[in-house]
Amino acid sequence: MKIGYKVWLDNHGKAFGDGPYELLRRVEKLLSLHQAANQMGMSYSKAWRLIQTLEERLGFALLERKVGGPSGGGSRVTSQGKDLMSRYERFRKDVEKGLLKIYDKHFGPRK
Amino acid sequence: MKIGYKVWLDNHGKAFGDGPYELLRRVEKLLSLHQAANQMGMSYSKAWRLIQTLEERLGFALLERKVGGPSGGGSRVTSQGKDLMSRYERFRKDVEKGLLKIYDKHFGPRK
Repeated sequence: MKIGYKVWLDNHGKAFGDGPYELLRRVEKLLSLHQAANQMGMSYSKAWRLIQTLEERLGFALLERKVGGPSGGGSRVTSQGKDLMSRYERFRKDVEKGLLKIYDKHFGPRK
Repeated sequence: MKIGYKVWLDNHGKAFGDGPYELLRRVEKLLSLHQAANQMGMSYSKAWRLIQTLEERLGFALLERKVGGPSGGGSRVTSQGKDLMSRYERFRKDVEKGLLKIYDKHFGPRK
């Protein structure tokens, strides 16, 4: 037996979580929402709608879009987006650690 | 903004969580899985299958079924089921408290 859980940030609906974090991490690396979505087996339009929804709920932009130009456009994570990502990383680690500890306290096999 | 989460006990699938806890709490009170399911807007057959699945994953019986007799049968929570319920209650409280604290640490509005 083990603990199962899902955790997310909520503001009248899911505003951020593991999936969005992973998507942004890939955008940061690939500088392209299109490629990031592709890597996650998500259609571009779904990824785009997801980002729109998250931005509305968060109240700030996650991506800066560069349209056209010699490099054919692309996306970058905004500084607010990066700040959220690093907070979320630390939050996520504390959640994992905290929940395992609480689980062990109540259901640990050696008690 | 706030934290959103779901938590459960897992053993090759969901073995216990808020829904099952609530169902057992009602069985304890009503001494009937039928009535407990009804109160939760769940069909009896769905509740019965749920209990079967949980018992398989937990490895012990949650309900004792009394078939027929003058009172027309009924269900009671086993002592192992009651023990699980009280552990789960304490676990659940610690989870709520722990997660709010972790959320506040990273996303609290007054930091």
